[in-house]
Amino acid sequence: MAETSFHVRYAETDSMGIVHHATYIVWFEEGRSALMRTCGASYTAFEADGVQLTVSEVQARYLAPARYDQLVTVRCWVERIQSRKMRFRYLVYNAESKEALATGYSDHVCITSAGKVARIPDKWRKFFKRAAS
Amino acid sequence: MAETSFHVRYAETDSMGIVHHATYIVWFEEGRSALMRTCGASYTAFEADGVQLTVSEVQARYLAPARYDQLVTVRCWVERIQSRKMRFRYLVYNAESKEALATGYSDHVCITSAGKVARIPDKWRKFFKRAAS
Amino acid sequence: MAETSFHVRYAETDSMGIVHHATYIVWFEEGRSALMRTCGASYTAFEADGVQLTVSEVQARYLAPARYDQLVTVRCWVERIQSRKMRFRYLVYNAESKEALATGYSDHVCITSAGKVARIPDKWRKFFKRAAS
Amino acid sequence: MAETSFHVRYAETDSMGIVHHATYIVWFEEGRSALMRTCGASYTAFEADGVQLTVSEVQARYLAPARYDQLVTVRCWVERIQSRKMRFRYLVYNAESKEALATGYSDHVCITSAGKVARIPDKWRKFFKRAAS
Repeated sequence: MAETSFHVRYAETDSMGIVHHATYIVWFEEGRSALMRTCGASYTAFEADGVQLTVSEVQARYLAPARYDQLVTVRCWVERIQSRKMRFRYLVYNAESKEALATGYSDHVCITSAGKVARIPDKWRKFFKRAAS
Repeated sequence: MAETSFHVRYAETDSMGIVHHATYIVWFEEGRSALMRTCGASYTAFEADGVQLTVSEVQARYLAPARYDQLVTVRCWVERIQSRKMRFRYLVYNAESKEALATGYSDHVCITSAGKVARIPDKWRKFFKRAAS
Repeated sequence: MAETSFHVRYAETDSMGIVHHATYIVWFEEGRSALMRTCGASYTAFEADGVQLTVSEVQARYLAPARYDQLVTVRCWVERIQSRKMRFRYLVYNAESKEALATGYSDHVCITSAGKVARIPDKWRKFFKRAAS
Repeated sequence: MAETSFHVRYAETDSMGIVHHATYIVWFEEGRSALMRTCGASYTAFEADGVQLTVSEVQARYLAPARYDQLVTVRCWVERIQSRKMRFRYLVYNAESKEALATGYSDHVCITSAGKVARIPDKWRKFFKRAAS
């Protein structure tokens, strides 16, 4: 599990005066990047091993709006990992009020750079199991 | 039901060489806009009636990658409509090969500009029922 | 010279209720893509020849705001082309009122996939010269 | 003058494998936000005074590419301030190698919420003069 915090950018808001809902999908991804950094690796290193974690599904539930300049925290963890796929979970909350803003998950399939489904390399499966707790 | 087609923008791709998964959420929304235009209205007119359709949940399944400059089509329709909420469905496909690229849905809650949950105005419920078929 | 028209997406607006200024840079790029398509090629074909047109400078002047769902037109043309670099010009205007919304330019340098500055291939220089008028 | 650092997001890259050039315009804006926070205010407070700093021009020069997960720093400062308008300057660099990635500026005009050009309120002009150094 890892958390990363940042301020809402003006470009991430929309005409409703709140953060656009697609922005959270980008924040989820930044949560994954932070999880990997926190555990001592980078998704770049994963790709350097000739594999990619392509996104097969994403879901987000929106609980409360976020606004420009607010400090938000994205919590990300591995929910489950199988031989060829895995699921990440997310919680986004207001870093000051602790109010939950959104929850969600994303499913990923391991593929080779040629696009074929492949086993998640053992060292990475171990890595992600550590990232689960 | 309505369809809208456009070319994939370079900015919508990522380092994997394919369209970034968050882009589809933006395309879904453009599908909603096209649905309303096709049915003779605009979401702007909806907001002008003092209500908004805030997004409460979004889900996307990714079936095949899209690439820069490809012509894609977003099909959008109303799956169900209740007194205070409704669900839109989406299919994104390659306009030339007809290959399905992604499917998804989004749930929306009707709120007043003050943020209170409200009934979808009758004239708009009728409008969206027409948009279902 | 070529023109392409599309509706303003909700995600392209910001808390000010108008199109975010960074969006125009993406629209300029879509203008370049449309220019190439109109002239019978694709930037994909350019890259397939082992070269890229990397952006070295971009400038935009904002004249009037655009809003959600408005139909906008991007006009793009080649202003000048040298052996290794070229400049595209842009005009964005409201497709209905014809009001000018923004103008700008972008400078590009031809590089190989290894990142070295290179001459723009002859066939492409001819292609872009046709695109100038 | 203020600096803010963050990791490059995957969504900010494009098919060239580098950060898309429009992303820098968003980073510039985040530099402005950080400048205001560092000086003890927020752009939200500026807007709460009934005025906005609308962008009238933006320019960026690209010196070297940035890639996914790299730590980048945006330096932002006020270059000049007049009664109704002001210019911000930007330098983006790789936080580890210190390599300059991009420079740029943005011009802003003070307008009322009704869209009329207005004087920058005195207290804010003083604020921005402090932000210049």
